Amino acid sequence: MKSTIRDVAKYANVSISTVSRVMNAPDTVVEEKRVKVLEAIEVLQYQPNGFARGLIYKKSDTLGVMIPDIENPYYAGLIRGMQDAAVMLNHSLMICNTDRDKKRTIAYVQTFFEKQVDGIIFTSDSLHEEYYEEMQRYRLPFVLASTNAPEYDIPSVDIDDEQGAYEAVKHLIELGHRRIGMISFPLGHTISGEPRYAGYKKALLEFGIVHNTDEIEFAEHRFEHAYEASERLFARCSELTAIFAASDEFAMGVISYLRDHGKSVPDRMSVIGFDNIRMAQMFIPKLTTIDQPTYDIGYRSVEKLHELITNGEVAVLREKLPHQLVIRESTRMI
Amino acid sequence: MKSTIRDVAKYANVSISTVSRVMNAPDTVVEEKRVKVLEAIEVLQYQPNGFARGLIYKKSDTLGVMIPDIENPYYAGLIRGMQDAAVMLNHSLMICNTDRDKKRTIAYVQTFFEKQVDGIIFTSDSLHEEYYEEMQRYRLPFVLASTNAPEYDIPSVDIDDEQGAYEAVKHLIELGHRRIGMISFPLGHTISGEPRYAGYKKALLEFGIVHNTDEIEFAEHRFEHAYEASERLFARCSELTAIFAASDEFAMGVISYLRDHGKSVPDRMSVIGFDNIRMAQMFIPKLTTIDQPTYDIGYRSVEKLHELITNGEVAVLREKLPHQLVIRESTRMI
Repeated sequence: MKSTIRDVAKYANVSISTVSRVMNAPDTVVEEKRVKVLEAIEVLQYQPNGFARGLIYKKSDTLGVMIPDIENPYYAGLIRGMQDAAVMLNHSLMICNTDRDKKRTIAYVQTFFEKQVDGIIFTSDSLHEEYYEEMQRYRLPFVLASTNAPEYDIPSVDIDDEQGAYEAVKHLIELGHRRIGMISFPLGHTISGEPRYAGYKKALLEFGIVHNTDEIEFAEHRFEHAYEASERLFARCSELTAIFAASDEFAMGVISYLRDHGKSVPDRMSVIGFDNIRMAQMFIPKLTTIDQPTYDIGYRSVEKLHELITNGEVAVLREKLPHQLVIRESTRMI
Repeated sequence: MKSTIRDVAKYANVSISTVSRVMNAPDTVVEEKRVKVLEAIEVLQYQPNGFARGLIYKKSDTLGVMIPDIENPYYAGLIRGMQDAAVMLNHSLMICNTDRDKKRTIAYVQTFFEKQVDGIIFTSDSLHEEYYEEMQRYRLPFVLASTNAPEYDIPSVDIDDEQGAYEAVKHLIELGHRRIGMISFPLGHTISGEPRYAGYKKALLEFGIVHNTDEIEFAEHRFEHAYEASERLFARCSELTAIFAASDEFAMGVISYLRDHGKSVPDRMSVIGFDNIRMAQMFIPKLTTIDQPTYDIGYRSVEKLHELITNGEVAVLREKLPHQLVIRESTRMI
């Protein structure tokens, strides 16, 4: 039988109004009682239904957003989309930068709970078990933006990374390239690492090109890492004519490395990126890339969280938005 | 005589604990009483002193940050610095994107108050009278980062924009340039507009170069605006050999325009930017620019807000951090 707020109050040996306050204005409840109530909620798996939730929880009309690295231009488009949807739905956004640091991420979940956010958007990082448990503990509705978690039933909005990577590499092959290197995220990155590498291999396989693991190099997150990875890759593989970079920032790092070594793009090497960040069209040469609809991912993730908060469930659990090959100047026929 | 919490309670006809709750956990006080208390606070100009504030206000260890346009890479460095200082001082940051929209900015002040932030950092926009009044109304301590407000005594951290612009243009003159155009922010931008234009004029004057108002064009905020402004400027002034762009994004817009019209930088035109955003050294050519210590501005602004919250005052009201000319590839001797 589903437990009620009365059960929680009884179990924790506090009044119903204290339970309500723990969910509504936790700062006003002393630590000791608050912990007891949270424990009771957990033990009894108490979950107010959509309607009761509205009665019990006070809506703050604020959503918490977790971003791994606010300095990375990839997130700019996402945040812009979230912002516009939030304005439309009359929510405020509170954005926190986690630096992909576990302790900090978990601390922010607690902070968000204390600030009484109505829900959380968790962006672009792997959903570690600890994060999942922490959000469950506080009963905070949350959705994943630009990431997903196959192992849990959490609403998510992102793209098909493997298919995007496949199309990027196919584009290079159709331009006549056969020796195609890759600058990849570490494969441990469940979203941008493994699936994009799988797409690269799939395209090579489909066109009967032997995949040589020498022709891939790994970079952490940033321009400078890709610049250094290029140095290692080109020292090893002198016959490459094209590079699939797993992000636009990586593509810029590759192009800068080549340019610093007297090789212009696309004359001497074709380079395709991934993401279509704002800079992709400002860069010289303008980047050929796979467009991720970051604005739409941001916008939809807020709508989805709103749906989850309002209805207690979402119509579509895992939403994949369409990506698109954008051909500009950094790739050419050979 | 200074008014006390007792006076406020009496004036508002509520208990002292209600006044305390309005400051501490406003969500737990019904709207009607809350408004009465806030009015009383305003009328009596009630301001708890540093020590009493600590007793009355509950510290949330959260700081609110207002950013005008999170898509603009200029803010990335600032936010990174704020983040690091916040971690060091054990604060969480809540970041909001205002879009320079007055209604939204004012709504965020209210939201921050309700979320019980300890203070606000207001970034890089003009401090309009309405903003000032709203923050006063809620007695929220705040500091200005990358902006300042000569008309109020508000702690601020920024650079000397006029001097920075002066040094940028002086660099061009020392390279032999005499016909120097400018892509400026609208002069109504009190920080990045007027002072940078003043620095440009000052340098020309000092070297006996006649300032021709034809040689300046205005752009709003972004790359594409600068691209369009370049079109207007070069259609009018064909003899320019150098451009001072009031931001790095503007410099990239100018360089892209020139490049799309067959003129390479710096061979056919020298271009200097302003800010030294992360992209400045990724761009091709790498930008010569005026480095703003954005990380330090962010870091110091959090430290300053912490000082203000802790002590009720700051040692240095208006802090100017050092900028620096960074010579890279986009300017050359003629």
